Amino acid sequence: MRKIVVALGGNALGHNSQDQIEKVKHAVKPIVELVEQGNEVILAHGNGPQVGMINLAFETSYNVSNKNPDMPFPECGAMSQGYIGYHLQNALLTELKNKGLKQHVATIITQVEVDKNDPAFQNPTKPIGKFYDLETADRFTKEKGYIMVEDASRGYRRVVASPKPVNIVELEIIKSMVKAGHLVITVGGGGIPVIKEGNEFIGVPAVIDKDFASAKLADLLDVDMLVILTAVNKVKINFNTPEEKDLDSITIKEIDELISQGHFLKGSMLPKIEAAKMFVSGKKHRTAIIASLEEAKEALLGHTGTRITN
Amino acid sequence: MRKIVVALGGNALGHNSQDQIEKVKHAVKPIVELVEQGNEVILAHGNGPQVGMINLAFETSYNVSNKNPDMPFPECGAMSQGYIGYHLQNALLTELKNKGLKQHVATIITQVEVDKNDPAFQNPTKPIGKFYDLETADRFTKEKGYIMVEDASRGYRRVVASPKPVNIVELEIIKSMVKAGHLVITVGGGGIPVIKEGNEFIGVPAVIDKDFASAKLADLLDVDMLVILTAVNKVKINFNTPEEKDLDSITIKEIDELISQGHFLKGSMLPKIEAAKMFVSGKKHRTAIIASLEEAKEALLGHTGTRITN
Repeated sequence: MRKIVVALGGNALGHNSQDQIEKVKHAVKPIVELVEQGNEVILAHGNGPQVGMINLAFETSYNVSNKNPDMPFPECGAMSQGYIGYHLQNALLTELKNKGLKQHVATIITQVEVDKNDPAFQNPTKPIGKFYDLETADRFTKEKGYIMVEDASRGYRRVVASPKPVNIVELEIIKSMVKAGHLVITVGGGGIPVIKEGNEFIGVPAVIDKDFASAKLADLLDVDMLVILTAVNKVKINFNTPEEKDLDSITIKEIDELISQGHFLKGSMLPKIEAAKMFVSGKKHRTAIIASLEEAKEALLGHTGTRITN
Repeated sequence: MRKIVVALGGNALGHNSQDQIEKVKHAVKPIVELVEQGNEVILAHGNGPQVGMINLAFETSYNVSNKNPDMPFPECGAMSQGYIGYHLQNALLTELKNKGLKQHVATIITQVEVDKNDPAFQNPTKPIGKFYDLETADRFTKEKGYIMVEDASRGYRRVVASPKPVNIVELEIIKSMVKAGHLVITVGGGGIPVIKEGNEFIGVPAVIDKDFASAKLADLLDVDMLVILTAVNKVKINFNTPEEKDLDSITIKEIDELISQGHFLKGSMLPKIEAAKMFVSGKKHRTAIIASLEEAKEALLGHTGTRITN
């Protein structure tokens, strides 16, 4: 039995509750096909649109009324794990039953440790929340300590850091669940970012890239394969030029060269490639696959997708 | 090793994020003392104030802007499980480490099955959300199918059903976790209420009483003891009269008589007493304890609290 960490993008999940219920029904089909193939699946997922929606609801209700409290970003992330996990586990269970498969499914609320000295905290780049005018932006900085940056013509918006994951607080829990044969949903949205202070973990406003968190999870669980599912069926070089070319396979050495040549878009394919490299470089026989959600099964059979190996 | 389900009230958890972080630090101390005593603890908790806050945030932001979607009540419950679970598991882990205990802690997003023919659905009584004028109430009924009832002089408010729990969807997951020695947080807020349709579980707007859900959990896990922690140190009869009397122990037969005499307040002590009876009556040697959070350890030693036995 091959163990695989599957990373699912937040954009496959939908922008509101009804939309998400429908989208998730489709998204779980290729994932259950991987279970059917005989893989033990550990599922990680993004939460960009969803945590944005939750953060916006609290921000809006806080701004119009003082009845509802301000909600810190790590807590919004925890809520998004519950919200997305509920729909995913529900749909996965139905699809497993439809196929006569006996796996149980669980969502684990997951904290991911980051280093408080991570240089990302000196240079926050991840925008969250709404655009505000300068006056409001200044007030937020004074009252809440938010870092607000100007975005070309649209106003001021809060930014948070995107530090690298260093550990997964609930790792032993996840290991037990995998050992018991359950399908685990974890590190939702890259995990709730926490820093360690003695015996305490303290939530920090940050966004951990879900592909990096998935690679860390895959590394710590020492699985056989990391599968990053996205909207394109293969990694491309010379993207959107006449020389555009699909890659069937790349080694981690080739990756460095391609990155330095600027083939991969920051915030899009680049973190996926870097996450794949991070996992694969850890041990000799590891493989990562970047493929489209719809063709996940075909990609694992070697018929499509891009394979990253040593 | 004695297995116990501990039910913690939502009021012990705080009304906003900062408040909750502080309150939870205190709430976990007596719970970790139970672990220290040698009990295997499975933790259930309420979510009244918290799911109310989440529901209100989405309701407010939906009403002031059409940018944010309406959020169904089961999804608000799933969010509250993530939000409360994050703080509880975080604080429990710190307190366990402070005491040199090695348990790991996990929050399981938990769906609880209810019967679509439960008579509670014919007579919804649980109020949620804000008060509205008649016109808005009528619009909600038309647009969203909400059942709105008039509350003396304060306006119209949505009500949902409070059906009985019949099964716990993630039961096998919880069993695995308990077997592995982990401290599990589950059935938060009584669980996300779902009804079964073939291979599907469908979320329904309802509130499952957290004490009933805890009793169901305790019954299905077949634990030794159900411990319901609340604000009073013992169950009282003739409450607030000159004949007020603390009960040290009661049998389930005595409970029926006391209930019929009207000693227990609906929505307060009554569901706790009924939940205790439900669990204890299932097997001969089962015990339930109703006690204050602060005196949980003393109650388990038999020095305080009210014991319910056959």
